[in-house]
Amino acid sequence: MINKDSLTHHISQQFNAELEEVRSHLLAMGGLVEKQVNDAVTSLIEADSGLAQQVREMDEQINKMETNIDEECLRILARRQPAASDLRLIISISKSVIDLERIGDEASKIAKRAIELCEEGEAPRGYVEVRHIGDQVRRMVQESLDAFARFDADLALSVAQYDKTIDREYKTALRELVTYMMEDPRSITRVLSIIWVLRSLERIGDHARNISELVIYLVRGTDVRHMGLKRMAEEVEGTASNPDNKGQ
Amino acid sequence: MINKDSLTHHISQQFNAELEEVRSHLLAMGGLVEKQVNDAVTSLIEADSGLAQQVREMDEQINKMETNIDEECLRILARRQPAASDLRLIISISKSVIDLERIGDEASKIAKRAIELCEEGEAPRGYVEVRHIGDQVRRMVQESLDAFARFDADLALSVAQYDKTIDREYKTALRELVTYMMEDPRSITRVLSIIWVLRSLERIGDHARNISELVIYLVRGTDVRHMGLKRMAEEVEGTASNPDNKGQ
Repeated sequence: MINKDSLTHHISQQFNAELEEVRSHLLAMGGLVEKQVNDAVTSLIEADSGLAQQVREMDEQINKMETNIDEECLRILARRQPAASDLRLIISISKSVIDLERIGDEASKIAKRAIELCEEGEAPRGYVEVRHIGDQVRRMVQESLDAFARFDADLALSVAQYDKTIDREYKTALRELVTYMMEDPRSITRVLSIIWVLRSLERIGDHARNISELVIYLVRGTDVRHMGLKRMAEEVEGTASNPDNKGQ
Repeated sequence: MINKDSLTHHISQQFNAELEEVRSHLLAMGGLVEKQVNDAVTSLIEADSGLAQQVREMDEQINKMETNIDEECLRILARRQPAASDLRLIISISKSVIDLERIGDEASKIAKRAIELCEEGEAPRGYVEVRHIGDQVRRMVQESLDAFARFDADLALSVAQYDKTIDREYKTALRELVTYMMEDPRSITRVLSIIWVLRSLERIGDHARNISELVIYLVRGTDVRHMGLKRMAEEVEGTASNPDNKGQ
């Protein structure tokens, strides 16, 4: 026998299952993208053009995951008409997926450079910096996804804050490479390739920060994207004084 | 006297007005962003650091527009529970706004380089290319917005196709600048600044392409993002053969 209560319960269980499913698809896509970043950097450092090729080929699968998650979000919006935190979840997922896809693009670009550099044979300067910054942004991606998985605004905040460190290290590495180009102009093309790789890594850090900001929005209900780190920290720690900044 | 029909009519009129309003806000933001691109390039070419400063200051207003449009979209999703083409409109707007904000960011970065280059005083190579590619990507932004305003999938397709031309011209300009750096290593820092500007312009072209793909999705109901230009053209022209590719 079905009464109204059990029906409502049944529908909401199914709805929750759908929300849980799309969230798990986002996290699966994130796991793959994180692996792509790691493999792209490794392929460059270890001059492994086979691995780089794998990264390139995997890009299509990531694009497909983006399309599928978007379709799931659209279906949930159309059929379930989510409200409040459920709606924020769908919005956060449909925006995060854009960042994940672009991280995948950047990993693919790094792999492309790795293949070119393999062909040229000579290991240029800047590999230490690529390894170092690469490790850090890969961890940023991982932690932004962990924050998403656990609805952890504090972890998300720390990822957003860490982006400053990446920007600083990127600039330092860039200055060193420019100096090196001046000293040895024949190296310009190869060093420029490494500069593009560092640029991609810095962009990956930005995307991880974007995802973290979406996690804070999801958990706290406040759009923290353009408010600067200090106010963002106040929002997360619940010490923000201006109630006008609260979203819905 | 209010009867049910006139009430439904009334609600749907109000709903349409809300949709129209958020769309007009997107187009207004687009108009401002397009001006930012134009002003940033002009400030660089004409060494006008005052104009560059204005571009930098305007970035905050663009960020605010993004936040506001997002809030409008969220409100419409929560209260109106749009379906079919109305839902696609809201999704397209909420994704386009991300691209517009990033175009604004790139314009702001170009303006920052313009200020630095003004201080250094000397006009480096590459200005002809910056002017030329700058004009073209500004027009791409403009046309992608026109396509959005007029629900014009054909115009959107032509913008997406044009992105290939930009990529080619960007690569040619890059090769010339690298040659120039090799011939005159003292120019490396300045030429690198111009390379970053060209990179920003190329990214702006990518974002205009993204917006155009969203217009095609909005008008034709098909997600054309990762399908390549040939199939995209078939979708727009209605000659696509595989019905499985149709979205909802």
